[in-house]
Amino acid sequence: MNEYVSIDTLKFLLYNVHQAEELLTKERFADYDKTSLDIFIDSIKTFSDTTLFPFIKEMDEKPSYFKDGKIIVHPQFEHIIKGGGELGVVGAGFDYDDGGMQLPSMFFHAAYFIMEAANNHVPGYFGLTAGSANLILSFGSQKLKDTYVPKMLDLTWGGTMCLTEPQAGSSLSDVATTASPTDKGYHLIKGQKIFISSGDHQFSSNFVHLVLARIDGAPKGTKGVSLFVVPKNRPTENDEITYNDAAIVGEFEKMGQKGYCTTHIAFGDNDDCRGWLVGEPNKGLSYMFQMMNEARIATGRMGTAIASAAYYSSLKYANERPQGRKLNSSGQKNSDEEQTLIINHPDIKRLLFSQKAIVEGSLSLTLQTANYCDKEISSTSEEEKEKYHLLLELLTPIAKTYSAEKGIESTSNAVQILGGYGFCFDFMPQQYYRDIRIIALYEGTTGIQSLDLLGRKITAKNGKALELLAVEIQETIKKASAFDELQLYANTLLENLGLVQKVIGTLMPHALKGNYERFLADATVFMDFFGTIVIGWQWLKTASSAKQLLKDKSGNQLDEFYESKIHTMKFFYTYEMTRTRGLAKTIMNTEELTISATKEMF
Amino acid sequence: MNEYVSIDTLKFLLYNVHQAEELLTKERFADYDKTSLDIFIDSIKTFSDTTLFPFIKEMDEKPSYFKDGKIIVHPQFEHIIKGGGELGVVGAGFDYDDGGMQLPSMFFHAAYFIMEAANNHVPGYFGLTAGSANLILSFGSQKLKDTYVPKMLDLTWGGTMCLTEPQAGSSLSDVATTASPTDKGYHLIKGQKIFISSGDHQFSSNFVHLVLARIDGAPKGTKGVSLFVVPKNRPTENDEITYNDAAIVGEFEKMGQKGYCTTHIAFGDNDDCRGWLVGEPNKGLSYMFQMMNEARIATGRMGTAIASAAYYSSLKYANERPQGRKLNSSGQKNSDEEQTLIINHPDIKRLLFSQKAIVEGSLSLTLQTANYCDKEISSTSEEEKEKYHLLLELLTPIAKTYSAEKGIESTSNAVQILGGYGFCFDFMPQQYYRDIRIIALYEGTTGIQSLDLLGRKITAKNGKALELLAVEIQETIKKASAFDELQLYANTLLENLGLVQKVIGTLMPHALKGNYERFLADATVFMDFFGTIVIGWQWLKTASSAKQLLKDKSGNQLDEFYESKIHTMKFFYTYEMTRTRGLAKTIMNTEELTISATKEMF
Repeated sequence: MNEYVSIDTLKFLLYNVHQAEELLTKERFADYDKTSLDIFIDSIKTFSDTTLFPFIKEMDEKPSYFKDGKIIVHPQFEHIIKGGGELGVVGAGFDYDDGGMQLPSMFFHAAYFIMEAANNHVPGYFGLTAGSANLILSFGSQKLKDTYVPKMLDLTWGGTMCLTEPQAGSSLSDVATTASPTDKGYHLIKGQKIFISSGDHQFSSNFVHLVLARIDGAPKGTKGVSLFVVPKNRPTENDEITYNDAAIVGEFEKMGQKGYCTTHIAFGDNDDCRGWLVGEPNKGLSYMFQMMNEARIATGRMGTAIASAAYYSSLKYANERPQGRKLNSSGQKNSDEEQTLIINHPDIKRLLFSQKAIVEGSLSLTLQTANYCDKEISSTSEEEKEKYHLLLELLTPIAKTYSAEKGIESTSNAVQILGGYGFCFDFMPQQYYRDIRIIALYEGTTGIQSLDLLGRKITAKNGKALELLAVEIQETIKKASAFDELQLYANTLLENLGLVQKVIGTLMPHALKGNYERFLADATVFMDFFGTIVIGWQWLKTASSAKQLLKDKSGNQLDEFYESKIHTMKFFYTYEMTRTRGLAKTIMNTEELTISATKEMF
Repeated sequence: MNEYVSIDTLKFLLYNVHQAEELLTKERFADYDKTSLDIFIDSIKTFSDTTLFPFIKEMDEKPSYFKDGKIIVHPQFEHIIKGGGELGVVGAGFDYDDGGMQLPSMFFHAAYFIMEAANNHVPGYFGLTAGSANLILSFGSQKLKDTYVPKMLDLTWGGTMCLTEPQAGSSLSDVATTASPTDKGYHLIKGQKIFISSGDHQFSSNFVHLVLARIDGAPKGTKGVSLFVVPKNRPTENDEITYNDAAIVGEFEKMGQKGYCTTHIAFGDNDDCRGWLVGEPNKGLSYMFQMMNEARIATGRMGTAIASAAYYSSLKYANERPQGRKLNSSGQKNSDEEQTLIINHPDIKRLLFSQKAIVEGSLSLTLQTANYCDKEISSTSEEEKEKYHLLLELLTPIAKTYSAEKGIESTSNAVQILGGYGFCFDFMPQQYYRDIRIIALYEGTTGIQSLDLLGRKITAKNGKALELLAVEIQETIKKASAFDELQLYANTLLENLGLVQKVIGTLMPHALKGNYERFLADATVFMDFFGTIVIGWQWLKTASSAKQLLKDKSGNQLDEFYESKIHTMKFFYTYEMTRTRGLAKTIMNTEELTISATKEMF
């Protein structure tokens, strides 16, 4: 019985649905073969089984806390940080030249998915260190790279991204932290940053904050925001470190992910906080977006991982709990019969299928984005690079949001399967339900992601990304149509592609007329609509792959494994794809009910 | 600014939409007029403002707990129990003859709605005492009435309902608690009951448990279940009380409603637990169903109340928090402008309207069921009594479930409006989000309610209840059609009524062929479908009423109050009623994906 993740499904998605081995023909990944990649995945699973999963409940019960200017996390983190460093999880995807493993992104994400499903309170420490190190590698000077990156790779030092400020929230154009130039090669940083994940803990000797700040005299708005490396302790000339006036002043107490700290950091309260500019002045936001795009895919992946853990937790319960009886042909139950396991009740199966469809569908989308990322980085053709880059950009807000919003629904279904026990601390689903709620808020809320999807990604380059996606989807439809059993679903997907065109055709005139508020008013509904279709595409692709393996008798799983994928695809089309027409109707409404409403109406 | 409830909306629903004053012509309610009812509502609001609302956060932070065989709740309960007793909240709806206030059910529910919105950790103590006292009054002997009810009315003693057992859960035919007859007028009770809400606390000197148990030799299944009064302490001949071997052995630690205890009770561990039979042997379940039906409406009402509190909490934030700017006609923001309040963003308005539509729509349905209840009890015609009884029965599972499932969604929207702060303990929405999750589990899960709706209520008396409901809905459609502005929505509701017929027509043959599993496989999807249409009916009724008041210039609110109701109705039809066709398609699917699935597929 899987406890939090199915490695079989993960490998099927990696190798069969998304053809990971094709990547290994590329020069960048030439050192890898299936055996070495499997060994990597298996070692991550062992680490997760032994070092992460056994502590998730305890981390909820004994949250991280703020004391005397420090964040104290669960003692197990000592072993986790050490183990993660040894496994090389921070630099797994980095170039060899930068001290990394040059692993395909698909396997990097697969590894984090396993770790996050085992214990979602942990891998953020790895991921944010990886993301901030990657920013330094991409845009920082050689000196910054040499000073910070090696210690981040083995987790001796942690890394964070510091964007949000109390008065600005999601509005990054209002960043007010200041950076005053000095003649000594650094700026003096002053300001407050909140909601800083992984901001501190007692098992890393230093933290490297990547901070958005405004250089004195910089333009207003996003065009005046620069990026700085601001360590908690700055390295001295004799290779020691000294406090850099970057104070942890508090921790946010949260309803979930309690083992994972969310800090408030005050930079420069004593006017002695030094920051080193990354790249050029006033380009901070565009640099940060590289990290944010990765972080968005990672956040979605974490949502899928939590939903996966909740799914297997409720599946275990459904397979063990006897309750009730089947109805006979008079619609009655026979009390002389033994009670049946609840997994035999159709409504419990519906709740389980719904979870399976969401978890595996969004995992497939995460791996799809990672696959595009791998193809972009490993391709030698500029045209191909652009193609995969545009596809990646288009899918990123969806990979983040579908996993968040539907992951919450999926986890709620896990709670429901346990009945009253689902609400009690003795069982895990309630914790996953609390944990996953943050996913729709992290790294740009669902509203922000939806504006990004419709307002930027769909319209960019005259809709080029959407055209490219349509080609990819049509390819899937074509392959699926070769199988009689899949034709119905392939046709449904094709109809939905047409519906996307119709919806966009209805909305675009508002943008062309300069009425952007109207154009974007229902962006979040559009996200739900378009995201469902994208996941429908992933499921058809998955079912095609399963069908092909069954036909060729070339899979290494039992037939029922592949049949379950086809069955779950049908479930998705019957219970989820049926929502798209209603959503399209809502988006195409002409009543303008939200934008016409005054605040007195509430 | 409303903090947790809008009394204006409540009174508009009571007096205008649901015509409460019509009831006052009935003999049963002849002592009441609008002034006295308003005074009652206002006194409940004052009690809630001063005694309940200020303590909800603390009750979450300092949960009730089990210690030395007792449940200890927050010290404020001392004042709450005293105040509730003085206000007469337990017996508000009871007959004068039974020591009650003979208040219309609509006002009883309105009062509890206010109290639950102020603090949902509290009114369960009142409600369960009321429900169990009512069971004794309805089916118990005069001796039982005299012994227990007066002390329950003033909350000197509390009351509970004890159904669930560890091995049985929702399957009441598997109740295993035993009742052995003695020749002394009582039975000896032995067994374990779990999830007993309001089971104990330090401020009531006794608890009166209404316990389902099986008399020795009783038939198997639900036909062998009897109902007993089993006090924690039994009255002695000299008017004192002595311990009755009904031990609190634990409390369930929960993710929400932490101030409200959920206990585990062991009856008869020392073979000295006496229970007194209520009514006839083996009829316990049918008696208990009276209480359960009330409890189901009450549970839905509580869900609506929590969602109301979350709505006003997020509305307050949206009205105070500046963030971001409006897009200009080039789709850009101007950083020189002041930030705008987030309530001006269309997506925030969408989240707020969605909450308002769910909260006020389901509150209206609660009052509709209460109105049918009042009409049933106050009518002198048997035919009318049956009519209202059938309507009440049909709407009960919907009133319970819509408020639960959509209330959860609504409360999640409140969290979302606060962004990252929504996840933090400093703000209320995260608490309401945790609190409300239980509503879909209490008193029969959503799955159980859905089986009840489709399997019993829709099919009962050859569909008589549904026919009666269709007449009521058509009456609303007719009234609404008189207003040009409402015709579109009236037509939509009419189309949806036709869709209900079509869906039921597709499902019924399965039942007629004895394939009940197939008939009921998608009962929960049917609940979502039918529930949405029922709320659409409530909204059209609400909008009609608002329109009439605007036309007659006879309302006591500003025009914008009534216009906001019409606007919210339009929102509901544009964003929610658009879901019904997709749901119908799912229900009418012919693939039988859940019932055909084996447990190996997961």
